[in-house]
Amino acid sequence: MLIPATLPVAYGQSVQQKHNLMPVPESIQFRAGRLKVDPSFRAAATGYTDARLEAAIHRTSRRLEGRTGFEFSRSTDPGTRTLAIECKGPGKAVPSFEEDESYSLEVSDNQAALKAATVIGAMRGLETFLQLLEGDREGYFIRAVSIQDKPRFRWRGLLIDVGRHFEPVDVMKLNLDGMAAVKLNVLHWHLTEDQGFRVESKRYPKLHQMGSDGLFYTQDQIRDVIAYARERGIRVMPEFDMPGHSTSWLVGHPELGSAPGPYKIERKNGIFDPALDPTREETYKFLEGFLGEMAALFPDDYIHIGGDENEGHHWSKNEEIKAFMRAKSIKDNHALQAYFNQRVSKILSRLGKKMIGWEEILHPDLPKDTVVHSWRGPASLAEAARKGYNGILSAGFYIDLMFPTWQHYRVDPVPSDSALTKEELARILGGEATMWGEWVNSETIDSRIWPRTAAIAERLWSPPGVTNTDDMYRRLDTLSLQLEELGLTHIRNVDVLLRRLARTKEIGPLRTLVSVVEPVKEYRRTQARPATMLTPLTRLIDAARPDSEEGRRFAMLVDGLLSDGPQLAKNRDRIDAVLREWRDVRPSLDVMIDKSPILREAEQLPHVLAEIGTAGLEALSYIGADATPPDGWRVAKMTMLDEAAKPKAEVEFAIIAPVRKLVILASEMMSLKSIPHSQWKERVLVLANEKSQ
Amino acid sequence: MLIPATLPVAYGQSVQQKHNLMPVPESIQFRAGRLKVDPSFRAAATGYTDARLEAAIHRTSRRLEGRTGFEFSRSTDPGTRTLAIECKGPGKAVPSFEEDESYSLEVSDNQAALKAATVIGAMRGLETFLQLLEGDREGYFIRAVSIQDKPRFRWRGLLIDVGRHFEPVDVMKLNLDGMAAVKLNVLHWHLTEDQGFRVESKRYPKLHQMGSDGLFYTQDQIRDVIAYARERGIRVMPEFDMPGHSTSWLVGHPELGSAPGPYKIERKNGIFDPALDPTREETYKFLEGFLGEMAALFPDDYIHIGGDENEGHHWSKNEEIKAFMRAKSIKDNHALQAYFNQRVSKILSRLGKKMIGWEEILHPDLPKDTVVHSWRGPASLAEAARKGYNGILSAGFYIDLMFPTWQHYRVDPVPSDSALTKEELARILGGEATMWGEWVNSETIDSRIWPRTAAIAERLWSPPGVTNTDDMYRRLDTLSLQLEELGLTHIRNVDVLLRRLARTKEIGPLRTLVSVVEPVKEYRRTQARPATMLTPLTRLIDAARPDSEEGRRFAMLVDGLLSDGPQLAKNRDRIDAVLREWRDVRPSLDVMIDKSPILREAEQLPHVLAEIGTAGLEALSYIGADATPPDGWRVAKMTMLDEAAKPKAEVEFAIIAPVRKLVILASEMMSLKSIPHSQWKERVLVLANEKSQ
Repeated sequence: MLIPATLPVAYGQSVQQKHNLMPVPESIQFRAGRLKVDPSFRAAATGYTDARLEAAIHRTSRRLEGRTGFEFSRSTDPGTRTLAIECKGPGKAVPSFEEDESYSLEVSDNQAALKAATVIGAMRGLETFLQLLEGDREGYFIRAVSIQDKPRFRWRGLLIDVGRHFEPVDVMKLNLDGMAAVKLNVLHWHLTEDQGFRVESKRYPKLHQMGSDGLFYTQDQIRDVIAYARERGIRVMPEFDMPGHSTSWLVGHPELGSAPGPYKIERKNGIFDPALDPTREETYKFLEGFLGEMAALFPDDYIHIGGDENEGHHWSKNEEIKAFMRAKSIKDNHALQAYFNQRVSKILSRLGKKMIGWEEILHPDLPKDTVVHSWRGPASLAEAARKGYNGILSAGFYIDLMFPTWQHYRVDPVPSDSALTKEELARILGGEATMWGEWVNSETIDSRIWPRTAAIAERLWSPPGVTNTDDMYRRLDTLSLQLEELGLTHIRNVDVLLRRLARTKEIGPLRTLVSVVEPVKEYRRTQARPATMLTPLTRLIDAARPDSEEGRRFAMLVDGLLSDGPQLAKNRDRIDAVLREWRDVRPSLDVMIDKSPILREAEQLPHVLAEIGTAGLEALSYIGADATPPDGWRVAKMTMLDEAAKPKAEVEFAIIAPVRKLVILASEMMSLKSIPHSQWKERVLVLANEKSQ
Repeated sequence: MLIPATLPVAYGQSVQQKHNLMPVPESIQFRAGRLKVDPSFRAAATGYTDARLEAAIHRTSRRLEGRTGFEFSRSTDPGTRTLAIECKGPGKAVPSFEEDESYSLEVSDNQAALKAATVIGAMRGLETFLQLLEGDREGYFIRAVSIQDKPRFRWRGLLIDVGRHFEPVDVMKLNLDGMAAVKLNVLHWHLTEDQGFRVESKRYPKLHQMGSDGLFYTQDQIRDVIAYARERGIRVMPEFDMPGHSTSWLVGHPELGSAPGPYKIERKNGIFDPALDPTREETYKFLEGFLGEMAALFPDDYIHIGGDENEGHHWSKNEEIKAFMRAKSIKDNHALQAYFNQRVSKILSRLGKKMIGWEEILHPDLPKDTVVHSWRGPASLAEAARKGYNGILSAGFYIDLMFPTWQHYRVDPVPSDSALTKEELARILGGEATMWGEWVNSETIDSRIWPRTAAIAERLWSPPGVTNTDDMYRRLDTLSLQLEELGLTHIRNVDVLLRRLARTKEIGPLRTLVSVVEPVKEYRRTQARPATMLTPLTRLIDAARPDSEEGRRFAMLVDGLLSDGPQLAKNRDRIDAVLREWRDVRPSLDVMIDKSPILREAEQLPHVLAEIGTAGLEALSYIGADATPPDGWRVAKMTMLDEAAKPKAEVEFAIIAPVRKLVILASEMMSLKSIPHSQWKERVLVLANEKSQ
């Protein structure tokens, strides 16, 4: 039984109820029967319809055609409908977090009925419908089912930072398709950074002309992306980070800066000193002009002003700014930034926009309709809510940090022990995954966003009790292929990178290696070696994926073996085969590395992988022979694994923990026999972790 | 020795001279020494330069960075140049087949010097430079070399038919990058077809509005593609097919048709009756307006008017047209089309354009500056040349027909036995690969164009003696990865299709199957089952590649074995392993097919593959034991192979011929022993083919 008994039946999954839906709907009940999907399939609106709904139905039908190979009937005879979409109205002209996204879906033997109050609700239901397709020897079908669904949070976003590395319009569109597939509803477009100013300003053209290396979106392209997002029920909220993170603005407009300049586009990673000068009226005049232009370009209610990581070094060095602070009794840089925020807030109000910013903006004088964006954690979010501010969470959803999916999945904007009142809880609007752009380009960004972001999308849409990690991973596997069907490159581009690295199509050995490593986590890549925004992202680390499937699979095999005491037969052959592959792949990898200097940095890895494989095989042979390893074996192997666990070429092995368990198991067979089998797993885990200290 | 002794030294390849260049340059001479490529690498123009050349140098540097992982110096100090590009001038403002594309490249231990008369010549040389990069334990380098190069033919094109299936702008751009990499210089953009009118006409907007399902290029997009092509030294020649192949024009303008209409966009494959009415002055007025608009949009000297496959059925049924013909003494439909062509030719002349059309347009009254485009073969091309017309060849270069690369490679616009005079020969301008669009979409088109088109590009660029097929395939393998580096999807999308077909990431068994089959050739797919332009292209045939590498590799293994008489040991183990895989993959494939109804059509294939594998293994075991197979074995196996050779699910096995050889070898061991070993291969081939009749 995968699901804890505490889950309500609606989303507990017995065999009969098992499904591939992601995010899991609020309520789902399968029934006997199935709706056949064959060439006569036809989806049609039966209530309100408009161009947006028709386009969504068209896309749904084409995706079903692609999967099934059928060419569906183009009949318009109402009697031939298979999926009837009954929509009450269009919903809001501009997507909003106040949109009604609910829908219901009833599938019987001969028809499916999707009902929604708005076109956006209907689109959410169409994505669910697509996820329900199954096939067997009888053909394609959808099980009879009754689904009632609506989101838990109203603000479910993905931030894409195009400031550090620019992403072409097509990459943005593909990711919008991916977002729609998992029912995300906000694209947070981080458009300006120290390293790039990515939006055309007709009023202040030096901003993009001098601040972007020519890599910016024209206003037509921006409108195109917004329209594309709207077609999918997704808001596009721009971020213009200020007063810090603004070097690229100052290249063309040094007069806005707090230091004399000149400025040039920042190439490095990090937090930099340049900041807008908050004491000069010209700054606000400029911002009023610029934000006025952007307010007209972006129809969303909100404009994100960033506000993070301004350390105020340039402010502290500027005598005029210091004099201003004294004159106005502004006691420190934080207060000065609060003053700046209030001025910007008033500008935005005049422009009919609401403000949102990173949590640094939280200050007693902040207008109450500001949204606070937390990067520190649910506690700061709760604090904002208590103070009367709406808030969204990104802490724990930093997908750029390369953490495994389960780690993001267990983060909740409202922890189960939250002490907030109902009114305060209503202020927690949702959250956003953040794809910061230091280490991604158009070739690799999809593999950093997907499929992990789907688990965050589920956290934000599904009921809070949907927390089973194994089941999440199972559904994520299926979903990942459906994301690929949209054109996303998160799977396909890994081999592309490996072929380029190895300079051959015969990448089997390199695939084996890369499948068991992960990129270093948190900010370790930045720390590992000097690099700039111009450094190519074509190394082994760029091909490595953040949540090694192979590592997870191997860990499950070992856990299966451990749970099969005392005979310890389960999975033994499969574990043996995997370990042999690791041990034996070295010579082919060595040859590959010799031919390809870009792989030279990884030259220790084949050796280490062979050692890991050998250690596991030795452990297995002791276990199989019920023999005790010689003195020193355990220490030697655990020491080797400690060394193996250290990052090399900025990747780390994702298979150390289960091999540790094998070593402990082999070493402790005697002692384990004295305790019940049911306790072996736990005991081995404890010992394996002890040794890793 | 791979290369026949008759080849001049300049492109014969001793071990020392072996290289990965494609197309092979006119002359290449390696010397001792190597130029190191490290982070200090810098390419810079030292003579004439302009934005186009600078952009080409920038792209070259970024591609080298991507491969090597280096971030190159951004220094502008002239002393730090590694690759100096000395260009005499810009060349023509609009790319033309009269462009000087020659270049020379001298690489020594410490510098590379690229010299060219024009920027386009320099760009051709930069592509050569990129292909010279090698790596070993010492790092990246380019061997010291002296290259003199220029194209054999001036017109080296790729036709992309976007009429039958629309291809997005990005697909066009990627393919232009691919063309530039292999030094092709004409994109022949087949923009109108019965099934779609793909270019915006501001003058006659009903053309694209009613004739395209909304899938057309705006004029801005057209200009964008033309500029992108020009940046790469590639002409963009539009084709507006007339008077036939014009159903999509008539949807919005039925008054131009030869039958009363109404018309609707054609969905099927084939040759259709609708045709422009060549007898009404309104038709020419319309064409003058439309072609005038297009002449301004497309700067190329030429406009292709198609002119193919008009069978004139609607003309013959139209009494007014028949009356017109009688009045003008026009004896038949061919003559009527000649009349039409002359009228169109005059319009084009007035617009300052030259005409090109498919060879049906050849007619005594055709103006002499017309180019004749041959789809019948070099003979008709020679005939046109004798009559004084310039011509280009596409017969033999129909890449949509799924023939293997070597078949296209041996086609030559000027066969070695050509009897043309020097003057006539000069009229043979070159050729074009044709990517007709019946069976491709944006997901699959790259795998139909690439890498095969690179061999055609070589045929059109390299000296006529460059004909060694094995060496072509060797270089093509390397080139294919460099094409992928540009973003082309010909390799990566195969697995994408397989994952969608199998609904899992574990596609190993399906990969094995698809690697040994090829799509049916010529027009057999069209004949096999009813399909339209709306039918999804996501079946097994769409994942299958036109020139099975695995098939080629296996054939080479078997030929190696055969050449190793009498011990017959060479490659035996590898052949055995491959055959076992074919025999044993069946159960996993059967499970996959059961789960995925779209694969059901392929359900015989695993069984057949297992039979092929088994036959081969039996043959090997007789060969190994020096034993004679029992009576009937040979006939049974050859009959099975005859059956196996028949297409199923519109794919055919590419491994039949070598398995036939194994069966013959096993059956004929006794008789072979009576002839010299050197004759075994030939004898087995003869017997294997006899049996296949």
